[in-house]
Amino acid sequence: MNTDLDEVEAFLHRQIPITVAMGIHLVSYDTESLVLSAPLALNHNHLGTGFAGSLNALATLAGYALLWLELRERPCHVVLRNSSISFRRPVTCDPRAICRRPEASEVEAFHDQFAQKGKARLHLHVTIQEHGALAVAFEGTFVALK
Amino acid sequence: MNTDLDEVEAFLHRQIPITVAMGIHLVSYDTESLVLSAPLALNHNHLGTGFAGSLNALATLAGYALLWLELRERPCHVVLRNSSISFRRPVTCDPRAICRRPEASEVEAFHDQFAQKGKARLHLHVTIQEHGALAVAFEGTFVALK
Repeated sequence: MNTDLDEVEAFLHRQIPITVAMGIHLVSYDTESLVLSAPLALNHNHLGTGFAGSLNALATLAGYALLWLELRERPCHVVLRNSSISFRRPVTCDPRAICRRPEASEVEAFHDQFAQKGKARLHLHVTIQEHGALAVAFEGTFVALK
Repeated sequence: MNTDLDEVEAFLHRQIPITVAMGIHLVSYDTESLVLSAPLALNHNHLGTGFAGSLNALATLAGYALLWLELRERPCHVVLRNSSISFRRPVTCDPRAICRRPEASEVEAFHDQFAQKGKARLHLHVTIQEHGALAVAFEGTFVALK
């Protein structure tokens, strides 16, 4: 499992250059969720708190990474079709984006659709918490294309 | 006017470190719109097209920059409350985010509210076009706080 994580992190750094400048780190991935972090020192705004653009990029990358790990056996492209984000409170520590794995039935339907049509979409929810409180809520529709 | 643009670009680079890595450049600002660009070479994804996270950050920064220029006489903070974005087609050239200045009546209401309450919100629309076609549509609610 750790080799997978290292590979995905290296893939992000190699293929999406801004992830190096952001200091993106793939923390964990299990049946529940995927966690991606980045240091605040590289991703703050003019107020010293998490920059909205960086927090959005971190959440987007958490969704990508979850889908890549989900589809690792299948040659495909993953793209983001649309997303929305709500900033509830300032992020003052190193942000950790948690992408919740959807219900098993949703993931199964996604795999079935991909196998049948060579294209499937999945709606993913990502949150950034701080001291147990919700700081950022992101959701996006990702599309996998054969 | 150019001094203002240079100042805002320098402010972005100094205060929001990821904007340096993104190569953010403030192209123009007039009564119609503000234009912010970034090289694709620094902001591409695993497919060689514009990375969704970078495009979102570019659009967010265009909104910030327009509000900073709008409020330059007044000491205040600007934050993004929420935003949504739709990716219509891949971005294959250096992206240019165009933040449309809202109607004069909206801007006036925003200034009045800020003067009265020390807090005001403005909804901004940002687009990224390519070869005359809409590639990315972003909208966000920004809040200025005294």
